[in-house]
Amino acid sequence: MSSDRPTEDGLIARYFAPLAGPGADGMRDDAATLTPSPGCDLVLTTDAIVAGVHFFPDDPPAAIARKALGVNFSDLAAKGAIPRGILLTLALPDDWTECWLAAFAAGLGDGLAEFGGELLGGDTVRAAGPLSLGVTALGEVPTGTLVRRMTARIGDVLCVSGSIGDAALGLALRRSPPADWADSLGAQERAALIDRYRHPRPRLGLAPLLRRHARAAMDISDGLAGDLAKMLKGEGRSAEVRVADIPLSPAAARALGLRPDLMETVLTGGDDYEILCAVPPEALAACRAEALALGLPLQPIGMVTGGEGPPVFVSADGLRQSFGVGSFSHF
Amino acid sequence: MSSDRPTEDGLIARYFAPLAGPGADGMRDDAATLTPSPGCDLVLTTDAIVAGVHFFPDDPPAAIARKALGVNFSDLAAKGAIPRGILLTLALPDDWTECWLAAFAAGLGDGLAEFGGELLGGDTVRAAGPLSLGVTALGEVPTGTLVRRMTARIGDVLCVSGSIGDAALGLALRRSPPADWADSLGAQERAALIDRYRHPRPRLGLAPLLRRHARAAMDISDGLAGDLAKMLKGEGRSAEVRVADIPLSPAAARALGLRPDLMETVLTGGDDYEILCAVPPEALAACRAEALALGLPLQPIGMVTGGEGPPVFVSADGLRQSFGVGSFSHF
Repeated sequence: MSSDRPTEDGLIARYFAPLAGPGADGMRDDAATLTPSPGCDLVLTTDAIVAGVHFFPDDPPAAIARKALGVNFSDLAAKGAIPRGILLTLALPDDWTECWLAAFAAGLGDGLAEFGGELLGGDTVRAAGPLSLGVTALGEVPTGTLVRRMTARIGDVLCVSGSIGDAALGLALRRSPPADWADSLGAQERAALIDRYRHPRPRLGLAPLLRRHARAAMDISDGLAGDLAKMLKGEGRSAEVRVADIPLSPAAARALGLRPDLMETVLTGGDDYEILCAVPPEALAACRAEALALGLPLQPIGMVTGGEGPPVFVSADGLRQSFGVGSFSHF
Repeated sequence: MSSDRPTEDGLIARYFAPLAGPGADGMRDDAATLTPSPGCDLVLTTDAIVAGVHFFPDDPPAAIARKALGVNFSDLAAKGAIPRGILLTLALPDDWTECWLAAFAAGLGDGLAEFGGELLGGDTVRAAGPLSLGVTALGEVPTGTLVRRMTARIGDVLCVSGSIGDAALGLALRRSPPADWADSLGAQERAALIDRYRHPRPRLGLAPLLRRHARAAMDISDGLAGDLAKMLKGEGRSAEVRVADIPLSPAAARALGLRPDLMETVLTGGDDYEILCAVPPEALAACRAEALALGLPLQPIGMVTGGEGPPVFVSADGLRQSFGVGSFSHF
């Protein structure tokens, strides 16, 4: 470590201690304490993001911080949980700068303020490799109400939040060189899609409603087709999805209008961080009305069916398509 | 990812699901649940280890797994906590093999069985860099009994568990070329020191006793001198340590007999993973007797004093030495 840089303790005191909640005692200890609210279970999840795999090394540091938070809080939201806090492991490459770190910490603080939750602890290591961030997120649900992934039943209605495919299209635009359809979009449309890639929006507002109405839920991180297959795997269940009902943003709709073959990217691309849930038919109307009232509409896209094959995606013209599991993987 | 390797889901199902506890639901979901025992607070800590920084890339995979567990559980032990579980993030380099992963998972399972705690969740990412492992460990203490790091008072007796300096000497032996004093030791002595570097032994057995008797505690991970300075920093406290009373293993004592200048390595080297605690004088006798009865003796090495300077290490010949904070750092 070069001598003009602060020590790890100095970094923690300057940038991270101000984000610490009461459980972390100002980051002056090697551990934090946390007690779930009375009548609640803690919910735990961990997801790491790596430069060059999950984000671009030159993405704004605040965006990287929010992505690390967002991908983890998206898991909490899908389980019906509200955030309590995070622990952060930051593996810094050799060329890190204090300026980068300051902007990163500011983004992390903004994200925690927006989403909820406190910084409970962390570790900073030097790695002779790309920047990577590991987050363990802790949330809570009323005891026994965690919404599981594998519990959908035949006949349940499949719904998704927000819009699908934006981040995958945004990634194609963000690459060098950008996708060949980039110039057919307006600057605002391109920016909207790239923003969706950079800034996952965990649908935390839907958590209470998922606990009440959803039989099963997960967040869509590895593509709708693959994640739906994961949700239904191994118990004689499949799904039929109406492609025309999959919610698209205006920018994604325009890109698809120009290039219909991008539908595969929309269905199999990653980084949506939307909610996929299975709702019993009798709960659908109440579930959708409550979601709409929150400004977070849930769109029915199909149904859980019996069968062993992968989910079938049916186009308006009757074409039936399936996608192999793992068609998209960060791994 | 090459086609002859299993998918991430396949890896999880094969190697990690068998280690999952009830809270992780067979690793079939994106989150786990955990509820502290009635009357307990959860204790959280996170520490990452990186190949080439904290361990050697060719260390046995099971040793790497135990190190990742050990360094985290050592923090729990120092806080008076018993382990409940971990979340693991594994960033695999491009040349990982399934054989390596199988041995790693076996070591992780053995470590969890020995130390206690279940696998609650994890994430596996590909990183174009060295192997790194991030562990978030969760433990618990009876509500309000967490042993803090910064709460020692002037007059408290400083004690350490086990023996100090072995791992730092083991690291010097493990390097290529090994330290020039390596050949003066016997093969068994060399093996004992290297084993201490490779296999931290979290002093979990001392946790209940620390809750009862210690005013402050931390684990020694970055060297006794630096960690003691951290423990006492910033509130008009310092320490005087009698070097001759610092407990040494037979192998370390022999190395020091040959090369007295290695004492600085012993005092400032890292990776001891022993407990450093401050015990009120009136509690010392009971504290030591209980530790001895557990087979985990606590050795008094000095006292908390008033003052602003770094801790002073006093040799048998009266020489007084201090070491700059951060004389050893993984960062």
